[in-house]
Amino acid sequence: MRLKKMIGKEVLDNSATIMGKIKDVEIDTASNKIESIIVSKGGLSESMGISKSEIIVPFEMIKRIGDKIILKQTIDEAEDLIKELELEDEE
Amino acid sequence: MRLKKMIGKEVLDNSATIMGKIKDVEIDTASNKIESIIVSKGGLSESMGISKSEIIVPFEMIKRIGDKIILKQTIDEAEDLIKELELEDEE
Repeated sequence: MRLKKMIGKEVLDNSATIMGKIKDVEIDTASNKIESIIVSKGGLSESMGISKSEIIVPFEMIKRIGDKIILKQTIDEAEDLIKELELEDEE
Repeated sequence: MRLKKMIGKEVLDNSATIMGKIKDVEIDTASNKIESIIVSKGGLSESMGISKSEIIVPFEMIKRIGDKIILKQTIDEAEDLIKELELEDEE
C-alpha cells in the first residue's frame, strides 16, 4: 500500500471507537521496518496548538490494515501500553 | 525517520546524477517493510500527462538514506534491473 493512501485513514480501537487519523508513519531506515504509526487525535486543543495530541502507536498494536486501521486493544489499554513502553525507553 | 520527510527528497544514482524525487513510498503491510520508493522523474512529459515517468525503485537498490537518497547503481543500470524484475514478475 502506498504511504499517501495510509495518511488520513481512521484508526479504530477493538471496540470500533475512533482514536484518530494517521498523520505519518515512522520507519527504521536501518532495518527497513515500520516502527509505528503517528495518530493525530484531532480536536480543538490540537488545532489551537494547546497540545499536540499525537499518539505514537507501535506497529505491533495494529490488528488489521484495510480501509480503516484496527487496533488490538481498546483506546485506554493502548494508551496505557504506550505509556509503559515510553517509561521503559527512558530507563 | 518519518515517511512524510522522505517525500520530495532527491534520488541520486551512484555517480551523483539526479534520477528524480520521491513522490511516494510503497509499504508491504504483511511483512511490515518498505517495498520500494516511487520516484518521479519530473519533466515536461509528466506534467503534460503524456507519460507518467514514475519509476518504482525496490528498496534493496538504495545504498544510503540521508538528506538525499543514494542508489547502488547508475540510473541506466537501475532502470535495466527494474525492467528485469518486472519481467520476472510477469512470468
